Amino acid sequence: MAEPLILINAFEVPGEEADQFVAAWEKTRDYLATQPGYLDTALHQAVMPGADFQFVNIGRWRTAEDFLAATQSPGFRESATGLGNYRPHPGLYRVVRT
Amino acid sequence: MAEPLILINAFEVPGEEADQFVAAWEKTRDYLATQPGYLDTALHQAVMPGADFQFVNIGRWRTAEDFLAATQSPGFRESATGLGNYRPHPGLYRVVRT
Repeated sequence: MAEPLILINAFEVPGEEADQFVAAWEKTRDYLATQPGYLDTALHQAVMPGADFQFVNIGRWRTAEDFLAATQSPGFRESATGLGNYRPHPGLYRVVRT
Repeated sequence: MAEPLILINAFEVPGEEADQFVAAWEKTRDYLATQPGYLDTALHQAVMPGADFQFVNIGRWRTAEDFLAATQSPGFRESATGLGNYRPHPGLYRVVRT
């Protein structure tokens, strides 16, 4: 079986909107966790002010097809409406060097 | 002992410059790996074209002070000259939700 793919999604979130963002992220995560191919996820928050991205989500998906199917579903769009104010920078990645 | 801090650094790298970037990244990693507080690192490359960041480095450091001391040292600046053309978006993070 192939290695899981790593989703890295960096979000632009103003410092004072952390709580609103986390609540919206949790709603979206709860939906995605029900979808085929979802493995796990971890939301990272910057520890110092000034980072370009206050939040970065790092998750694992079984395949790119699973991820794309999940995030193009009507249920996703509904669950993610609260994230609409926060510009995302998503990508699917593999580790190439350590 | 406190949890390690997670360095997430997203780099803007044109598709055709992947090899040059990786060579420059390896040189910088080799230097940082000698510094106090460095724990490990993994360079992630996007699997599909179109991601805003072709490369994202995710590493672990014992403390923020260790990371700042390492990246403000003259040896770092020398080792990282090859990365100068690739805009970085670094931050130190903790996991706040899973």
